[in-house]
Amino acid sequence: MVKEASETMTLETVRNSLNEQENTIIYSLIDRANYPLNPKMYDESASLIPGFDGSLVKFMVMETEAVHAKCGRYENPEELPFFPGNLPSSLVPSQEYPNILHLTASSINMNESIWDFYFQKLLPLISAPGEDGNYAKCAASDLNCLQALSRRIHYGKFVAEIKFIETPQDYEPEIRSQNSDSLMKLLTFEDVEETVKRRVEKKAAVYGQRVSLVEAEPGQKPKIDPAVISRLYDEWVMPLTKKVEVEYLLGRLD
Amino acid sequence: MVKEASETMTLETVRNSLNEQENTIIYSLIDRANYPLNPKMYDESASLIPGFDGSLVKFMVMETEAVHAKCGRYENPEELPFFPGNLPSSLVPSQEYPNILHLTASSINMNESIWDFYFQKLLPLISAPGEDGNYAKCAASDLNCLQALSRRIHYGKFVAEIKFIETPQDYEPEIRSQNSDSLMKLLTFEDVEETVKRRVEKKAAVYGQRVSLVEAEPGQKPKIDPAVISRLYDEWVMPLTKKVEVEYLLGRLD
Repeated sequence: MVKEASETMTLETVRNSLNEQENTIIYSLIDRANYPLNPKMYDESASLIPGFDGSLVKFMVMETEAVHAKCGRYENPEELPFFPGNLPSSLVPSQEYPNILHLTASSINMNESIWDFYFQKLLPLISAPGEDGNYAKCAASDLNCLQALSRRIHYGKFVAEIKFIETPQDYEPEIRSQNSDSLMKLLTFEDVEETVKRRVEKKAAVYGQRVSLVEAEPGQKPKIDPAVISRLYDEWVMPLTKKVEVEYLLGRLD
Repeated sequence: MVKEASETMTLETVRNSLNEQENTIIYSLIDRANYPLNPKMYDESASLIPGFDGSLVKFMVMETEAVHAKCGRYENPEELPFFPGNLPSSLVPSQEYPNILHLTASSINMNESIWDFYFQKLLPLISAPGEDGNYAKCAASDLNCLQALSRRIHYGKFVAEIKFIETPQDYEPEIRSQNSDSLMKLLTFEDVEETVKRRVEKKAAVYGQRVSLVEAEPGQKPKIDPAVISRLYDEWVMPLTKKVEVEYLLGRLD
């Protein structure tokens, strides 16, 4: 298995993918910022869908994930559903995804934490207060954001696998003693994290700028505050990614 | 009705919305360009979904539109389904959308033409040849593009209504004589169209650029060719929008 991984995926290809995924996250959040907060959509007690126990967003995500499952989305080890219970089977012929990850990967799903920080913390920072009633479109936009964040954070499994293959001697003692704290230290590179934070902030400023044929008026704000994107990575994306990496490594020798 | 329209929507608010919608279209096409063409997904005869008469993309769009319909998407006069037959009813409490358009609007749906130009003409211009098997994600990306294009093109109904309200005397004689050609001439402003083409090209160059903390290497290509976006507007978006406007005006006095 180790051999296959190093053949199909390297730290370089993983980094390129993470870089592309930053763009997808930023584009999807800029789209979400077109709508107000629409808090009724997330209110579990608002009962917008008669007979359904949960919010409109939960209904929309569950039903859309069922469609995606039928089309084979979750056969791809990079994709994880938010509501894995009772998903229908894939109807399309199986794809041969490269067999890169250790089996322990399939037990790691941080989507509950992603759901919570997205709706409780991040959304109020990027969307204006209020309701516009455009629930279906807005929930679809939320789902795009959630899926992009989930893919990025769970990509930590691939990051961990590549790091482990490169220097197993660094990780094996800590894995054998199941020492999460030491693993977390081994996986933390503050200078790299600072670089990522500065890069996503710059991307948000570039991709969120208002473009017109005349020169921009000074003081025109980008569509989302670039500092929020830096904070998103600092407080949620990078810590959760490292949590994924640690959990993966803890099970890597099982 | 005329009074309501001028109260809630002006040529200024319509133009702002069209401007925002350009961004959504460009972001979604940049996302789609992350995947190869995946032609099997569009092949009606590939039978990827057993027992379903049509392509995987058609299956995905039909099933997702059913979810969105349950969440009230098509109650909004700005949104039109690609497969309007047999859509389920909305489950959410009705929204009060402003009553801006004449009843004739509900009979105008250009989504078949949009579907055709998108898959046959546009997609080969923005995505590389090949298959990656990421069908569910790729089809979801297609749906985002289709929905953004459809909303933009059918926004022509609002554009036509506003123009009609501002100078009904210009349009009424041509409407009474049902003269499509004269209406098309009245709605065509070549200098405005040139401006739009230059603006979307500039946006594609800005939003599609590769951002890194070091200075970009000279000659780095943006993620989609900006000239393709200009062509998209020139050949498909603006002509179809004007077709929507003409059809709307032809029925405006019914």
